[in-house]
Amino acid sequence: MSIILDGKATSNQIKEELTIQVKQIKDAGKRPPHLAAVLVGNDGASLTYVGSKVRSCERIGYDSTLIKLDDDISQEALLDTIEKLNNDPLLDGFIVQLPLPKHIDEEVVLHAINPNKDVDGFHPTNFGKMALGMQTFIPATPFGIMELLKRYKLDISGKHAVVIGRSHIVGRPMSILLSEKGNPGNATVTLTHSRTQNLADITREADIVVSALGVPNFLTADMVKDGAIIIDVGITRVPDADHPKGYVIVGDVHFDQVKEKASYITPVPGGVGPMTIAMLLQNTMLAYQRNQD
Amino acid sequence: MSIILDGKATSNQIKEELTIQVKQIKDAGKRPPHLAAVLVGNDGASLTYVGSKVRSCERIGYDSTLIKLDDDISQEALLDTIEKLNNDPLLDGFIVQLPLPKHIDEEVVLHAINPNKDVDGFHPTNFGKMALGMQTFIPATPFGIMELLKRYKLDISGKHAVVIGRSHIVGRPMSILLSEKGNPGNATVTLTHSRTQNLADITREADIVVSALGVPNFLTADMVKDGAIIIDVGITRVPDADHPKGYVIVGDVHFDQVKEKASYITPVPGGVGPMTIAMLLQNTMLAYQRNQD
Repeated sequence: MSIILDGKATSNQIKEELTIQVKQIKDAGKRPPHLAAVLVGNDGASLTYVGSKVRSCERIGYDSTLIKLDDDISQEALLDTIEKLNNDPLLDGFIVQLPLPKHIDEEVVLHAINPNKDVDGFHPTNFGKMALGMQTFIPATPFGIMELLKRYKLDISGKHAVVIGRSHIVGRPMSILLSEKGNPGNATVTLTHSRTQNLADITREADIVVSALGVPNFLTADMVKDGAIIIDVGITRVPDADHPKGYVIVGDVHFDQVKEKASYITPVPGGVGPMTIAMLLQNTMLAYQRNQD
Repeated sequence: MSIILDGKATSNQIKEELTIQVKQIKDAGKRPPHLAAVLVGNDGASLTYVGSKVRSCERIGYDSTLIKLDDDISQEALLDTIEKLNNDPLLDGFIVQLPLPKHIDEEVVLHAINPNKDVDGFHPTNFGKMALGMQTFIPATPFGIMELLKRYKLDISGKHAVVIGRSHIVGRPMSILLSEKGNPGNATVTLTHSRTQNLADITREADIVVSALGVPNFLTADMVKDGAIIIDVGITRVPDADHPKGYVIVGDVHFDQVKEKASYITPVPGGVGPMTIAMLLQNTMLAYQRNQD
């Protein structure tokens, strides 16, 4: 039986810490941190994510702004909006919710964000700083996983970590952070992906598995070593008529099987997901502090 | 017996190709590419490296400028020099030879270089683009290794590559490039370093080993699998009274042993080293072309 890495509780803990910081800021007569979110179109999942980010801001006392733009907005008009946000001295950070409509070049948009306000950490300058081990905005999902390992005091130095998936948002930065100097850090990291041969042979050797694949129940008990730490980044919506929402969120890890072998494991939901929002709020606090300096 | 990956011959091939390109540029009445190198102090190895870079430029028809600065130059004066180079429209790219004297902050200096002229690819913006799979200046040593794999048509897709050493100049970018989409690319990559446990068990599983450790003859035959591709980035100067220079350059790989097991192997010298200079010249051509657009 394994110990649950409770992302929900840890996320609440971080939000409480930030709430206290915000109160101190306001008590000192200063404005609180301010995060804006740009949402283009009406994608259901995107609406849910952005709504949740905005509500979290409000709950801990941040100012927040939600900018909803029509699906058919031109790339130019979107870039104009971003330029305004870049130049707003009372705005500390902002995110552009992905995916964007097909007629808009995501890369151009993300690169137009002022790196000092890029609290998602997707701008090449911030990504490069992260990869070079410098202080910067770290993408929220891998940042949240590192924070979870840290708060549970899990020592990964010299251990073998296997990351499944090489996306720029999770797998790639995760592989870098786990192997950087630091605590947590210093792991020996194998990055696997769609072209990897004999994946199960590799995961079976791992002391830590981070799965960011998006295939429900992919990681089964036969693929993991006894006592491994298992981090599940998968959040696939699987249709389920029995649920009020019409779907359930299912992770990459076959939880019921794997929890019997793992030493520590994140559940889905309530694992990595809540940590992601907490780290976005943390990045916004960092942006605020830099903005005040 | 293994096939030698002849970096010297491949480097000469690339230089010949660039020479032809430069001739075409000059024949069209345009100025050739122009690379500058900044050298602070009189470190012997640095002098050798910079001298070799400048001579290579001259040989293929580039303009080149060597800027030698005193050991006791202030950081401010060095930054002034960099600013002038950044603003020189007739200069396409430049490098600052490392290491710098102790009183100068290397990070501040490297980050002051205009990313569009950063042909070493060490600026966070360029490093981030590389890590995000975008076109940019790739650090010359890992770029040279990728080019060597490419020109020898070695298919590494889905293969297991093990990189030894996590430096920002070699190991880290190498691990990223090998696992990126592309050809060569798509390898499953394990990044190992000083904290890695049971390194030999890991290297023995590798289809490709890239060693960038700097320990002479470290990688012995018992550490490699039959048929593996072996890339040796080590260039340690070992004192040797029998040689006119008083030293010999020794790689990380115990060449005589390992060549009996490997399928392909780079020698030292004559392997990765010459490729590094060729790729710096290649990056300078890229900078020139962008500067002309």
